[in-house]
Amino acid sequence: MKITVLGCGRWGSFIAWYLDRRGHEVSLYGRETSRNMARFLETRDNGLLTLPESITLTTDLSKTREAEIVIISVNSQGLRSLMEELSAYELKNKTYVLCMKGMEISTGKRLTEVMEEFMDINSNVAVWLGPGHVQEFYRGIPNCMVIDAKEEETKDLLIQAFSSDLIRFYYGNDLIGNEIGGATKNIIGIAAGMLDGLGLSSLKGALMSRGTREISRLMEAMGGNGISAYGLCHLGDYEATVFSKYSHNRMFGELFVKKEDYDSLAEGYYTVMAIMKLSRKYHVDLPICSAVYEVLFEGKEPKESLNRLFVRSLKEEF
Amino acid sequence: MKITVLGCGRWGSFIAWYLDRRGHEVSLYGRETSRNMARFLETRDNGLLTLPESITLTTDLSKTREAEIVIISVNSQGLRSLMEELSAYELKNKTYVLCMKGMEISTGKRLTEVMEEFMDINSNVAVWLGPGHVQEFYRGIPNCMVIDAKEEETKDLLIQAFSSDLIRFYYGNDLIGNEIGGATKNIIGIAAGMLDGLGLSSLKGALMSRGTREISRLMEAMGGNGISAYGLCHLGDYEATVFSKYSHNRMFGELFVKKEDYDSLAEGYYTVMAIMKLSRKYHVDLPICSAVYEVLFEGKEPKESLNRLFVRSLKEEF
Repeated sequence: MKITVLGCGRWGSFIAWYLDRRGHEVSLYGRETSRNMARFLETRDNGLLTLPESITLTTDLSKTREAEIVIISVNSQGLRSLMEELSAYELKNKTYVLCMKGMEISTGKRLTEVMEEFMDINSNVAVWLGPGHVQEFYRGIPNCMVIDAKEEETKDLLIQAFSSDLIRFYYGNDLIGNEIGGATKNIIGIAAGMLDGLGLSSLKGALMSRGTREISRLMEAMGGNGISAYGLCHLGDYEATVFSKYSHNRMFGELFVKKEDYDSLAEGYYTVMAIMKLSRKYHVDLPICSAVYEVLFEGKEPKESLNRLFVRSLKEEF
Repeated sequence: MKITVLGCGRWGSFIAWYLDRRGHEVSLYGRETSRNMARFLETRDNGLLTLPESITLTTDLSKTREAEIVIISVNSQGLRSLMEELSAYELKNKTYVLCMKGMEISTGKRLTEVMEEFMDINSNVAVWLGPGHVQEFYRGIPNCMVIDAKEEETKDLLIQAFSSDLIRFYYGNDLIGNEIGGATKNIIGIAAGMLDGLGLSSLKGALMSRGTREISRLMEAMGGNGISAYGLCHLGDYEATVFSKYSHNRMFGELFVKKEDYDSLAEGYYTVMAIMKLSRKYHVDLPICSAVYEVLFEGKEPKESLNRLFVRSLKEEF
């Protein structure tokens, strides 16, 4: 199939590599000003992987018209402006796939909700979520992921087209839950990094148990299925997010509490702002997300805030 | 309170140290033939911690008569013979606390069920479960754990008596689920070690998601609450069991698939035998536990067995 991947960061470029390997006709788009794209155009390499010649590299967004499937992997707060830009090309009959994890801060919307403002009636949108490190996939180590969408046909199409010996896809059945699960795992990742930075790594067990629990409650309040918090989109991604040295969000949390320099803000930094809105809107108590928010944005003392999470003692577990 | 701890291994000796620190009058019992006890009697140290003089060390089981609370931390298959031995002393009005995770293979019974065969009508039994490393507690790093029992008064008594700044206790509400969760986390730990040994560590995310799911189904089939699989007794203990270098079960799984020497069999090695019985008795499909069983006892190829778990593709996640 003809596939365009919009966004040439770590994950977008991996997706392009993967779908080319899977036998599809793949273009990878990045802005002219993108340093990642400049590097790919020069060397076809980004330090993590090398893109074969069979992948078309482009900085021309209008080429997206030719694709049957449009995969988007940009930062969540940039999704709306990308779609505004794309609207000039009057795209029709596309299957969009979001390979990104976040929420829109300004509206508190899920990313598929943002997409629906822009899509024509004959287009559909899916999400592709779950665990896996680019580095490990590239070395040939398999993993399982999940694809979810409103329509069964969209899931069928994508899972048939994308499955391989390297990635095994499960059918999602809860778009709300899966999107919230994917977005919020980055917040739990930041909390994990903070625990690591404070020398409290052994609290990451309790973090996993209590973190999944509060996210599960949020999913249910929003009309999703609470069990999704325990699926591949969220808990299934904790190995990569809560424990891995590769995790950007975990590392950000660790550096933040150690007051060390970090290259860039992690996605969970933005997501937690949106989630605080949802917490108020749906009247759901989210103690871990709130603690991360207070430490990042209100100058609260990390050790006290995080310790307090786990000292709510002498009460029932569930 | 007067407390006797039966069993002077890593965990039993920590419990004695902790409850002494918490202000109780503590005795620690080990058999005359125990190498651990011989070492404590000589040096009061086991390489992990040093026991203060305020803890009475004894090899006389009859001293258990003097205790109000009897804590048991021995290997699960030895619980019945310990209780048989204790029955000579006609203990009455005791609160027993099991600090151990397993099942009885010969009967497929939970450990509190074994206890009930021996206890007088005025005694009660509780379980003390959850995450935490002896090494980290000893360094002063706090964690949260759970105490469960049939009677509210038993939980109240123990949680009031045992809580401190180092361990925060939650009230359990599902004795069946908590016992099964504690026992089976060791099997998941062995599976995690096998993945590590095969260079498939990035599948530990999927292992967490799928592992909790099958244990949750078993809990429900046995009359427990499936949500307990996501509590401190099971998922909350994954940091210590699935990721930690200290985990005996994880290390055993890793050495087993690498065909390297291991000091001793891990508790999960025994538990998986008992769990296979429960799987048949309650007609619950337990693919991860079954794979661990096949690799350990039926000579199945680890890589193929474990990979197969995660390639059941093109199907719904829940």
